[in-house]
Amino acid sequence: MSSLLVRNAARILIGGPDWEETAGDVLVEGGRILEAGGDLAARAPDAKILDARGLTILPGLVQTHVHLCQTLFRGLAEGLPLLPWLKTKIWPLEAAHDAESITASARLSVAELLLGGTTTILDMGTTRHHDAVFRVLEESGIRAASGKAMMDDGDGVPLELLETTVDALRESFDLAERWDGAAGGRLRYAFAPRFVLSCTEDLIREVARLTRGEFLLHTHAAESAEETALVERVKGRRNLRVLADLGFLGPKTLLAHCVWLDDEEIDLLAQSRTRVLHCPRTNLKLGSGVAQVRRLLDRGVHVSIGCDGAPANNTLDAFAEMREAALLSAAQAGPGKLTAQDVLTMATWNGAEALGWEDRIGRITPGRDADLIAVDLETPHAAPVTDAATALVYSAKSQDVRHVVVAGEVLVENGALARMSSAEIVCEARAQAQRVEARVAQRSAR
Amino acid sequence: MSSLLVRNAARILIGGPDWEETAGDVLVEGGRILEAGGDLAARAPDAKILDARGLTILPGLVQTHVHLCQTLFRGLAEGLPLLPWLKTKIWPLEAAHDAESITASARLSVAELLLGGTTTILDMGTTRHHDAVFRVLEESGIRAASGKAMMDDGDGVPLELLETTVDALRESFDLAERWDGAAGGRLRYAFAPRFVLSCTEDLIREVARLTRGEFLLHTHAAESAEETALVERVKGRRNLRVLADLGFLGPKTLLAHCVWLDDEEIDLLAQSRTRVLHCPRTNLKLGSGVAQVRRLLDRGVHVSIGCDGAPANNTLDAFAEMREAALLSAAQAGPGKLTAQDVLTMATWNGAEALGWEDRIGRITPGRDADLIAVDLETPHAAPVTDAATALVYSAKSQDVRHVVVAGEVLVENGALARMSSAEIVCEARAQAQRVEARVAQRSAR
Repeated sequence: MSSLLVRNAARILIGGPDWEETAGDVLVEGGRILEAGGDLAARAPDAKILDARGLTILPGLVQTHVHLCQTLFRGLAEGLPLLPWLKTKIWPLEAAHDAESITASARLSVAELLLGGTTTILDMGTTRHHDAVFRVLEESGIRAASGKAMMDDGDGVPLELLETTVDALRESFDLAERWDGAAGGRLRYAFAPRFVLSCTEDLIREVARLTRGEFLLHTHAAESAEETALVERVKGRRNLRVLADLGFLGPKTLLAHCVWLDDEEIDLLAQSRTRVLHCPRTNLKLGSGVAQVRRLLDRGVHVSIGCDGAPANNTLDAFAEMREAALLSAAQAGPGKLTAQDVLTMATWNGAEALGWEDRIGRITPGRDADLIAVDLETPHAAPVTDAATALVYSAKSQDVRHVVVAGEVLVENGALARMSSAEIVCEARAQAQRVEARVAQRSAR
Repeated sequence: MSSLLVRNAARILIGGPDWEETAGDVLVEGGRILEAGGDLAARAPDAKILDARGLTILPGLVQTHVHLCQTLFRGLAEGLPLLPWLKTKIWPLEAAHDAESITASARLSVAELLLGGTTTILDMGTTRHHDAVFRVLEESGIRAASGKAMMDDGDGVPLELLETTVDALRESFDLAERWDGAAGGRLRYAFAPRFVLSCTEDLIREVARLTRGEFLLHTHAAESAEETALVERVKGRRNLRVLADLGFLGPKTLLAHCVWLDDEEIDLLAQSRTRVLHCPRTNLKLGSGVAQVRRLLDRGVHVSIGCDGAPANNTLDAFAEMREAALLSAAQAGPGKLTAQDVLTMATWNGAEALGWEDRIGRITPGRDADLIAVDLETPHAAPVTDAATALVYSAKSQDVRHVVVAGEVLVENGALARMSSAEIVCEARAQAQRVEARVAQRSAR
């Protein structure tokens, strides 16, 4: 069995929720952590060595809400609120995707995610070509739950994206059959009805019923004031009540955004143990507002973090997203009410829990899969370091990530991708983005 | 005269307010721009070459509110609102500074600023040892206006920081005598009464009277709700009315924060052409709120950007600060109301104007001082690029800055400091921070 020895770290942060600290080596065998802390060189004389001298090791960052298929549209949907952003930009762009452009978008995303220390994601695709995303996830080495978007209804949805209820279900189950548990369990399928306004009630109910608690369920809810009001007008009930009535809430259900909730809806989340996926920068940029994270946590709601789509952020930078979550909470709930350690826990341990991977990742302890990152905190922008969590959340940047290991595989070494070429990925993304834009222009000229 | 040829840029953004674009070379002679755009190699066969192939050149970023002396305290003042943050952390730490620790703090700051593309700053020191800051500014090559803090009054001010009105004025004029116009005009003096609550009315009035419009005036105003209410209670008038009555407002006056303003105060700013220095991340982190930038601009108030102090941010990253300004404005005023180009203008051209350097820097045109940066936008986190301003504000990161030139001097080349050693600066900062903390502990034990 191949082994890896991460050597001489200045700090090893074991991980949430308690964040114990040690230092020295991490020994990995067959993709799993054998031991962490101290000098372990004698234990594995033939191991591949990854030099972590002066670096801080922590569990890989987990982003529980991203859209890899949208990364190619970065910068193409500026200055719009949620519903016009979807209808006039994102949906027409998604409709113009083909398997090649989705592949380019997914590769660009994974390159950015890995280089920035994100080792695990929950991804939502568009309605078509989702095998292409899974193939990139497989080849790249990142850990992911992912699923195609399901859209069988909705005002302003382009015909190319719209599908029948039966087709949405069939294609999702086919994808789940092919990809759930693939790559040694590194990949999982997550069913993803897009949001209440683009799905029939039949679809949402059937997804919940047919998956019977065996799969993750992933959707958007209560994101903007306009959308939330529209749901209430169309459905006669608030967004979370609609989902509850359709049997969609529960501990395997993950809801992105949840900015606009009333007291009853917060109770529904807490009682059903439904997970909230906090996307602070997207919520600012689309003018949606600020989710009340401190209040949700205090009411017993589970919260993790994600960057959402690049055309609404405009990066997939988990460090920037942690910082935004921390800063907004200080402004909203008061300084110190959400600590740097709380935020780091949301971006690692809570993410692992949300995805049902809390026995597998999220901490650097023997027996767990080796998903870890090594970060340089001895920089002019983070020094001097008193508390590592404070430095990681408030000062560190994605480019301070030196090494990234997923399931024992070194995917980033000394700040460079080990399996992919950044330059080729950027070049191909540029070409494919132009092709997608040309197709959108053709369609709108028809 | 020494010349510098910046070669083969993919884009040259001439700068605000119009942001014309060209490409190719920038030729610099004797510190000034001779020409920008096209192939200029034949014009200067002996010039030093700075390779900018594939990079985007733009005017250096200007931060109009920073505290170099506080950078050493990064991470030492977490989880507090403004007034307790000052009284229980920042002032005791400043009181424990000596010339050595201030030197280390200023060097750490300038390293971070230059590496992140900031070429010009307006800095406020503590009350003592301010020559040490100027010596670092001189040796480093950065462009700066700076001044010692003046504090002759105030609840909770440590004795070591407190000074008499006469001493505050005398020491400031002495510093101005030594440093204003130094380093070929690259350094200027800015008089800095700290804020209304730590200055007598005599001091503020005398600063305005004695400088007679010849110097920049720099202070904090209307930062937090608690501070603003306290000013109103103590003075019987709102903060900006107090400053107006003391003759302190005007086109050479720069006010940091301005979060809590009523209509009359906004009128005072617009009529007096007083400049507002927007510090969005500090305002979030200390729970102070969000300045109404779009509203201020619409009312004719001049706004530029700064990171404030590292213990309230916790970086001096102009890219992060631009992004925060853009995101908060989208949430506050609506998406698209403050464009990426507007924000980029605030962080370059408006900064130059605020400091009275609009004839000298802020644009890449013949005759101006050569203050420019070269940024890599062809990265997995910024590609594909459609609009350069959007990519710079929303996706680019400080570490994407490859080269930094100030007054024709190359201060950062290929992402590394040319005149200083990052490793030495970080090491010295760590040692000096420990010494300052030990002195604070000694004093509080007395």
